[in-house]
Amino acid sequence: MERTWAISGVDLHLDLEGPRLRAALEAGLRDAVSSGRLGPGTRLPSSRALAGDLGLARNTVADAYSQLVAEGWLTALQGSGTRVAARVARPEGDARSPAAEAAGPRTRFDLRPGSPDVSAFPRAEWLRAARRALAQAPFDALDYSDPRGRPELRAALADYLARTRGVRASPDRIVVCSGFTHGFALLCRVLRQDGARTLAIEEHGLRTVPTAASAAGLAPSWLSIDEEGAAVAELGDADAVVLTPAHQFPLGMALAPRRRASLVQWATSGERLIIEDDYDGEFRYDRHPVGALQAHAPDRVVYAGTASKTLAPGLRLAWLVVPPALVEPLVAARMLAERHTGVIDQLTLAELIRSGAYDRHIRRARLVYRRRRDRLVAQLRRRAPEAHVSGIAAGLHALVDLPPGLSEEQAIARAREHGLAVIGLASFGHRRAREREALVVGYAKPPEHAFTGAVARLTATLGAGTGRINRGRARRGRRPPQGQTASRS
Amino acid sequence: MERTWAISGVDLHLDLEGPRLRAALEAGLRDAVSSGRLGPGTRLPSSRALAGDLGLARNTVADAYSQLVAEGWLTALQGSGTRVAARVARPEGDARSPAAEAAGPRTRFDLRPGSPDVSAFPRAEWLRAARRALAQAPFDALDYSDPRGRPELRAALADYLARTRGVRASPDRIVVCSGFTHGFALLCRVLRQDGARTLAIEEHGLRTVPTAASAAGLAPSWLSIDEEGAAVAELGDADAVVLTPAHQFPLGMALAPRRRASLVQWATSGERLIIEDDYDGEFRYDRHPVGALQAHAPDRVVYAGTASKTLAPGLRLAWLVVPPALVEPLVAARMLAERHTGVIDQLTLAELIRSGAYDRHIRRARLVYRRRRDRLVAQLRRRAPEAHVSGIAAGLHALVDLPPGLSEEQAIARAREHGLAVIGLASFGHRRAREREALVVGYAKPPEHAFTGAVARLTATLGAGTGRINRGRARRGRRPPQGQTASRS
Repeated sequence: MERTWAISGVDLHLDLEGPRLRAALEAGLRDAVSSGRLGPGTRLPSSRALAGDLGLARNTVADAYSQLVAEGWLTALQGSGTRVAARVARPEGDARSPAAEAAGPRTRFDLRPGSPDVSAFPRAEWLRAARRALAQAPFDALDYSDPRGRPELRAALADYLARTRGVRASPDRIVVCSGFTHGFALLCRVLRQDGARTLAIEEHGLRTVPTAASAAGLAPSWLSIDEEGAAVAELGDADAVVLTPAHQFPLGMALAPRRRASLVQWATSGERLIIEDDYDGEFRYDRHPVGALQAHAPDRVVYAGTASKTLAPGLRLAWLVVPPALVEPLVAARMLAERHTGVIDQLTLAELIRSGAYDRHIRRARLVYRRRRDRLVAQLRRRAPEAHVSGIAAGLHALVDLPPGLSEEQAIARAREHGLAVIGLASFGHRRAREREALVVGYAKPPEHAFTGAVARLTATLGAGTGRINRGRARRGRRPPQGQTASRS
Repeated sequence: MERTWAISGVDLHLDLEGPRLRAALEAGLRDAVSSGRLGPGTRLPSSRALAGDLGLARNTVADAYSQLVAEGWLTALQGSGTRVAARVARPEGDARSPAAEAAGPRTRFDLRPGSPDVSAFPRAEWLRAARRALAQAPFDALDYSDPRGRPELRAALADYLARTRGVRASPDRIVVCSGFTHGFALLCRVLRQDGARTLAIEEHGLRTVPTAASAAGLAPSWLSIDEEGAAVAELGDADAVVLTPAHQFPLGMALAPRRRASLVQWATSGERLIIEDDYDGEFRYDRHPVGALQAHAPDRVVYAGTASKTLAPGLRLAWLVVPPALVEPLVAARMLAERHTGVIDQLTLAELIRSGAYDRHIRRARLVYRRRRDRLVAQLRRRAPEAHVSGIAAGLHALVDLPPGLSEEQAIARAREHGLAVIGLASFGHRRAREREALVVGYAKPPEHAFTGAVARLTATLGAGTGRINRGRARRGRRPPQGQTASRS
């Protein structure tokens, strides 16, 4: 049954049949805003009034409004109702975050890696789960709690990780922490206390990894990376290693099976520890996910997972599955810090997992990101055929090797002229010598309505038509000296 | 208008007039359960059905149910509806938290300090605020966020702290952290990096304070405490000091005005830092709250506040107001750890403060705790006249000096026989020599329905009638050797 109704004199056409009433309502409103039929500043009817008109539950309308506010189409301000967002206030132009400021005041699009599309955070589902979780929790859940995390969440994670990632986890060896870096920093301190001196680290990765290791007194030793992933033969007598076996960050390959085997052999033969950073293991597009390494040696591997990519980094929710001997030292380390992660988020995530909403959200997100990846690859092939894309079998980012003659610095500067923030591979290189000129493109980050524009600006930056990009303006003065860009091998 | 309705054949009498419908409904149900008219396991009607019967909004009934679940009167389990809790499952007997386990498996009452009554956590208000906050937040609030905390919360706190505690705070010098100990540990690391070597610490206080200082490489120097609070004349050339000026923990006095003046003089003359732990500044019963020391020297004082006493420790939400020069080093320290506190709790607390619900909750709690304090004092006077109570002008705990001849160990053991967990002053003493035998009684902690029972057991433990306490059972074997209890001076 299709119904038509009018908001401020604008007709909206909705297919309100079947169980996906809310999705249909959202789609109808989104379309009306993006097409301009509902103009900036237009006030929408109250959720109660619209629900009455449409014969829907009020929550259905309220949830749809919330979602569209989250996505930046609508705004909801106390006292002035729900309105269509002003173009100028579009979220992609929001420069309030320090990261956005660093990228320049005119940044309208952002393809830097590290975040999922937070505008798709399932706010309504999260709130429903929070309500159910708080209704069921014993009151002392709100008191100082188990430093490993709430038992409800550890139980839910044990089941989830076994089911989706093959992790051999029991709730008593799970430690809920506030993001990967938090858990990793705690681990480094515990390792150092236990006498460890060196930690092997992939030569490309997050800057915070070697920094946190050094801060804890561990000396880094570097592992080079080739098409089979980290060169585990270089591990030598390091006391421990941290790596990203399912999807190397940022280069994007999976650790080859024979290397996985030697890695496990290295750890078990010498009582050494492997820290498996499974930051985006949920997102694999080509085949079934690469199972967790942890299953092969649960007593020698710390498995680290996170909600930063599946839900949102702002939650600061992550988890370690650790060998039993590490539980007590980890707990002791955090008793002198934040003690445990906030319980309401923990209880809510537990309920989200338990109810199946977490899996559903991930499935939806996986479809969206795979489509985005395909569009990115197709657009680059068409408009910037000299750029080479790799690392795309999984995750939320791609490695884009630059066309010959274009340095990272040049690409970043050109992108900035287009209002696009990007980041070069050099920002993730721990060793000095640069071997390739590439961008690490986070295609999950833009909100849905900004993705097309972001990709268009990327292809304009990298494409044959770079002549269109202000060639006339004297940009040469800002270019880095040739020496810096001549190291490609 | 009084209405009577029946649940499972039991009549409930409700005064459902005026705006406090939910409170009346809660009171009626609570009374029916505690009197036994609604027996354990009884299934309550669905909130929808009861709301229909009573002509109330469904949310009113659902919120009342949630509150009673939180308080332990009812249980709500997926698939089996809302039922009257079984006596055996009463929350005060819940031994799942490590703390409760440590107190013995038969603990039914808990008067240890450190927590408010978490069963009174305003779950419904929190959820409402979360819904509003998420509807209004820009989507990138859920991305990696400002490590100082969300701007919404820092703005709300700046206003709140100025209004209620006289703190001179601007949002840009507030750092939201995950509990006091977390913020304190970060501060210690920053102080040490800046060259500090010694931190003066009150000789009675939280164990984690000297431990975290030592872990950061700061040597503690002890300040003795007399009836005017910490002996600031002993500060000498310590690089910094941490103390509890509004309500010394655990002894309970306020720092005398002339000592506040010398303390500030000490800090400003020598460029030294004061860390003002204002853990329970919201709860003052005798007169207006003692204003924050910070206002006298905002560039030399770090003000530390927390939601652990006003709302619940499980949230792990606290805040530092710091001199501008400390903001950047604090931010850098947490970038190698958890980066920032979870944003949803931050946004929710901001909305709770902004809407006035936070102030209302504190006012309600202050009334409840003052009544509890008065009942505790009256009951001890009547039934244990040889125990001496002090430190009760503020806060959520009292210091109870034991009757002559009773040691802390004896009192703790006797209380345990009554199913009551208490803690002795010795647990908060950083120096060896014990000067008094006393209990630190946290009267805020029990849920409302357990408070009377908890106080009765305390007075039985300490009262003249201690003969009633299992004198027949051979307990002497468990008593500590005399030498350990003979150090009272």
